[in-house]
Amino acid sequence: MRATVMYGAGDVRVESVPDPRLTEPTDALVAVNRAAICGSDLWPYRTLEHSDTGRRMGHEAIGVVEAVGTDVGTINVGDVVIMPFAYSDGTCIFCREGLHTSCIHGGFFGTGEADGAQAEAVRVPQADGTLVVLPVGFDDALMPSLLTLTDVMGTGHHAAVAAKVGPGKTVAVVAVGLCGVLAARRLGAEQIIILGRHPDRIALAKEFGATDVVSERGEEAVERVREITDGFGVHSVLECVGLEQSVLTALCIARPGGAVGRVGVPQDETIPASRPAFHNNVTLSGGPAPVRAYIEELLPDVLEGRIDPGHVFDRVVSLDEVPDGYRAMNDREAIKVMIEV
Amino acid sequence: MRATVMYGAGDVRVESVPDPRLTEPTDALVAVNRAAICGSDLWPYRTLEHSDTGRRMGHEAIGVVEAVGTDVGTINVGDVVIMPFAYSDGTCIFCREGLHTSCIHGGFFGTGEADGAQAEAVRVPQADGTLVVLPVGFDDALMPSLLTLTDVMGTGHHAAVAAKVGPGKTVAVVAVGLCGVLAARRLGAEQIIILGRHPDRIALAKEFGATDVVSERGEEAVERVREITDGFGVHSVLECVGLEQSVLTALCIARPGGAVGRVGVPQDETIPASRPAFHNNVTLSGGPAPVRAYIEELLPDVLEGRIDPGHVFDRVVSLDEVPDGYRAMNDREAIKVMIEV
Repeated sequence: MRATVMYGAGDVRVESVPDPRLTEPTDALVAVNRAAICGSDLWPYRTLEHSDTGRRMGHEAIGVVEAVGTDVGTINVGDVVIMPFAYSDGTCIFCREGLHTSCIHGGFFGTGEADGAQAEAVRVPQADGTLVVLPVGFDDALMPSLLTLTDVMGTGHHAAVAAKVGPGKTVAVVAVGLCGVLAARRLGAEQIIILGRHPDRIALAKEFGATDVVSERGEEAVERVREITDGFGVHSVLECVGLEQSVLTALCIARPGGAVGRVGVPQDETIPASRPAFHNNVTLSGGPAPVRAYIEELLPDVLEGRIDPGHVFDRVVSLDEVPDGYRAMNDREAIKVMIEV
Repeated sequence: MRATVMYGAGDVRVESVPDPRLTEPTDALVAVNRAAICGSDLWPYRTLEHSDTGRRMGHEAIGVVEAVGTDVGTINVGDVVIMPFAYSDGTCIFCREGLHTSCIHGGFFGTGEADGAQAEAVRVPQADGTLVVLPVGFDDALMPSLLTLTDVMGTGHHAAVAAKVGPGKTVAVVAVGLCGVLAARRLGAEQIIILGRHPDRIALAKEFGATDVVSERGEEAVERVREITDGFGVHSVLECVGLEQSVLTALCIARPGGAVGRVGVPQDETIPASRPAFHNNVTLSGGPAPVRAYIEELLPDVLEGRIDPGHVFDRVVSLDEVPDGYRAMNDREAIKVMIEV
């Protein structure tokens, strides 16, 4: 089959690889119909050291089940399924608590643990726990929004939950995490401030419910957020970048007693602003989103049209065009790229 | 009057200072009957740069009201009162949310904002919001336990709340924060692991409800805590030190989805272990405890004998003996020193 392999920074190729096989009795094979390029894929796209073997990329997919292992009970050949970015057994102590990203038999697609989903097919470990069967077909207009439930929409929701967003709260979203805006609105936020400068993202953020835009950076951004929040800062900050500077800004714009929910994968060993965060009793929470847990909560809202996160996809490519999709996202020509396989 | 002044590291003197006066109509003057030396007083005791003016020390006191300003309504001359380590108006947006340490008219005793309470008397700003009238006199046997409500018991409770301690939870307390142990037991923790080596503290921690002792340090401590918690770590960690190493240990012994409540004043600019904390969705919370808010919750338990935090005081000194009290705590001869003024 054909699959996406990244050999180093800027070096993404779509090439022939061995077909995936069932290797465990709990596996399923899924023929990918839709996949996506993730903002987090841009970190290796910018920094990955060259290797001769490369890394199989992609962790967001919708597809149809082609085969299941002998221990798979609830997933059947022919099912149209969503594949969250992490696989999980659904039964361990952490899955039962809703933290599927810490599943003791789990792992992540597009890493050494499981191959990537920017491909014609993907082996899905722990199929019963991982996959969610969809009640609609690939021709459905909701397909882009459903695809966001594999990662970005669940991740935005996780940031909002970790930042304790609720009715009437003031919220800031660092770096225009679009699904974070949508999640905050969905959870009842009164004011949603986005920090960023990219015109396309800002326009979509406003559609999704953003009420204010702060285009300043660093200390000036902190000052501006305070100005538009009675001087105190916001209840909830969604940190969607992972750089030291963005975490610093996030911690500094939270009001006393506020919370920062971070979903940007940290690029540094330490967290800044220990003392101000302490002095203000600011909570820092978040991590890889247990999107598998959130699919059940968010799926009805997508199916019934109450949220439309699929608007984040502003470009569609074929599998062979994936390298250009990476380039477009990295050059900020596209917000997010959907792959029609 | 006589008061405690710290002129630099190791240089604590009790000397004559001008009597305090009412300076704002919201002030009260309190004649101190009991005060205390705090673990946090040991930071300047070890590191304060010499100055000719010195710093007036102390932020924990019980006393009797000697005078009130014209705007004081609920506190009367003759009342026996508890003075939390921070003053607060009780009416601002943050006080109403229970975060009195972020009161917009508030501040801290024993800092430039208000003089210290290791003295014969202290001026208490925002008297109506700050002081709590006690239903017992100075001769009461509960006086030591009541004195802990000014700081350590409320702080231990805050650490436990920030670390989300609840019924059935597993808890670790970094550096034998004794009132943290008591607070965790009070909130229903099932297993309470203390990390520390000091025999007197360990003995008292066991009286207070600790179930396990880990005397290893660093990575060995992390390994040992995991061993006694099914390999996963604890739900809740109370970080009572504030050093980078202790915060690192705290973040590493929290189980996935767990929480660290820190009340040790941070001695560093950054928080370590950004990536593991993120990967495990560990929440970091805490800060200066709003003990004023907690007095109402904890006072009945002290008055009715359900908790006995006063046992943390293992030495009593007169005001003139305060310098030796600092020395004794710093040399770990005493756990905590009560001052009878």
